[in-house]
Amino acid sequence: MIIDCHGHYTTAPKQLEAFRDKQLAGLADPSRRPASVDLGITDDEIRASVEGAQLKLQRERGTDITIFSPRASGMAHHLGDPATAAQWARVCNDLIHRVCKLYPKNFVGVCQLPQVPGVPPSTCIKELERCVNELGFIGCNLNPDPSGGWWKDPPLTDRYWYPIYEKMVELDVPAMIHVSSSCNPNFHATGAHYINADTTAFMQLITADLFKDFPKLKFIIPHGGGAVPYHWGRYRGLAQDMKRPPLAEHLLKNVFFDTCVYHYPGIELLTKVIPIDNILFASEMVGAVRGIDPETGNYFDDTKRYIDQLNALSDQNRTKIFEGNARKVFGRLNAALKQRGLN
Amino acid sequence: MIIDCHGHYTTAPKQLEAFRDKQLAGLADPSRRPASVDLGITDDEIRASVEGAQLKLQRERGTDITIFSPRASGMAHHLGDPATAAQWARVCNDLIHRVCKLYPKNFVGVCQLPQVPGVPPSTCIKELERCVNELGFIGCNLNPDPSGGWWKDPPLTDRYWYPIYEKMVELDVPAMIHVSSSCNPNFHATGAHYINADTTAFMQLITADLFKDFPKLKFIIPHGGGAVPYHWGRYRGLAQDMKRPPLAEHLLKNVFFDTCVYHYPGIELLTKVIPIDNILFASEMVGAVRGIDPETGNYFDDTKRYIDQLNALSDQNRTKIFEGNARKVFGRLNAALKQRGLN
Repeated sequence: MIIDCHGHYTTAPKQLEAFRDKQLAGLADPSRRPASVDLGITDDEIRASVEGAQLKLQRERGTDITIFSPRASGMAHHLGDPATAAQWARVCNDLIHRVCKLYPKNFVGVCQLPQVPGVPPSTCIKELERCVNELGFIGCNLNPDPSGGWWKDPPLTDRYWYPIYEKMVELDVPAMIHVSSSCNPNFHATGAHYINADTTAFMQLITADLFKDFPKLKFIIPHGGGAVPYHWGRYRGLAQDMKRPPLAEHLLKNVFFDTCVYHYPGIELLTKVIPIDNILFASEMVGAVRGIDPETGNYFDDTKRYIDQLNALSDQNRTKIFEGNARKVFGRLNAALKQRGLN
Repeated sequence: MIIDCHGHYTTAPKQLEAFRDKQLAGLADPSRRPASVDLGITDDEIRASVEGAQLKLQRERGTDITIFSPRASGMAHHLGDPATAAQWARVCNDLIHRVCKLYPKNFVGVCQLPQVPGVPPSTCIKELERCVNELGFIGCNLNPDPSGGWWKDPPLTDRYWYPIYEKMVELDVPAMIHVSSSCNPNFHATGAHYINADTTAFMQLITADLFKDFPKLKFIIPHGGGAVPYHWGRYRGLAQDMKRPPLAEHLLKNVFFDTCVYHYPGIELLTKVIPIDNILFASEMVGAVRGIDPETGNYFDDTKRYIDQLNALSDQNRTKIFEGNARKVFGRLNAALKQRGLN
């Protein structure tokens, strides 16, 4: 089985954005607030939204199941207030749940959290519990910068974040560290903010002892870990200069990298440098890069091809990347698959 | 000849920091301002500060000359006002000049600019001119985020920056895009802020047409280009999705990467992915990572060893990385070397 651990619902029917418009318009003029959280999206519209996109690509590329969450840039935690954030997360997560119910053999849900800059993440616990306990979701996306490119909240290692970590450990769900859109004109969202956040989060984790406090907490750093594997010597060296333990011991029981790196040499480096047990297959399709690479004739984000090309990888290690590691990191995945009649 | 294009004076005598303390104390209490810009540093103290550090490492590693600038994290453009910034840049640059005069065959100067957040970079022209015309410097370090981790100034592609670019082109000097220390607790300076800035700058350049306006402007992106080479497919794909020209045509006549990547697999990827003409040898010693890699027994930042290990590299290409490309990118380097009796 090939499990893609990183997919977003980037193709949701247009009613979702119309709802969001009303919600944000309602901040200025309460009479414009959406009258209902019923988006008026039919099952057929949901089918149409994924049949020609994620499902088609799964079939074409030979992947089986996608761990699926709301559109990352759509989370936009910097907009609104705790009430709109809670409503927006709920609406987005419910839509993911509908996709998973319609295609239980293709999608497993991961939730958006109702984060708000400056508001303690403990306010997200209720939605996380609802998604895991009621909707059967197996993880969450945690935004390390809810201010959207201004980086005003405390680092992920601060006790500010501990209540949500406690709940994650209790529920046995990992978080993908994933920012949303950037409202800082310096940071292009998918070209700078996403990658910077990945790098930033990893460096935060080096400097602290978060996993001493939470030995069972698990993070996936997406987009191949930002700059981290390319600069693995720098990070090993910085950790050593700072008298931190070796990274394998300090972080790699808790931190994992996905394979959203859109060319072969990057994937080759990732698998050379990072232990295989810490790499989870992912493509983020349909996502940041949608075109075909003129150098290969294949989609940039068809990351399975790059892994298939790794001759040095044993079958056992390939299976870990494609399936085994996801089953370990997402503690609820095996049960979710079994419930779907998959093994 | 082996030219290291990225070295900072991280070992300056302690009087420099004492001066800075007085300068910043003077912001709160004018009576504490330094009485003089004479730091009271003797030539012998300068010799002692580099003999056991940069010079020793040059000899041990077999590199010849370092393009040398003030300590990057010491620039701290976010502190002070235009007057203190001008004075601080002048003092730091004068000290670099003294090093270059004492060791003309080992160091060529690059200057710190007196940037201040929110103040147009045109205020830096005077110091740039002084350093190039009077001190014989061949480049400058340009901080894309003078606010020190808060990213409050406009992107590098904004016309805000054009006056300094005009002067750079007129003087035929490139800039290394280099941030300073971070006062945002989210960003570790050398582990996140530096690398993020490199990635951010490159993505800014993709989105605009800066080099149409300045065909002769040249930037070096340090630290191996941040995350860019590792995610080269992502950047090629994003550019294509945005209908930008291919990156080679769009940016690579003007943008260059150094080799401050502290492990062999990273250097291998850099030289596989980025055209050889765009790679300049650098180590940033004595810099961000000072230890010995237990996996190799050599200094992490002894980047020459990684390049020496690249069997696939032709002698011609190796010479380009070690020497030829620096001579092209730094338009005043050949004259500076000739003046020193070096060819």
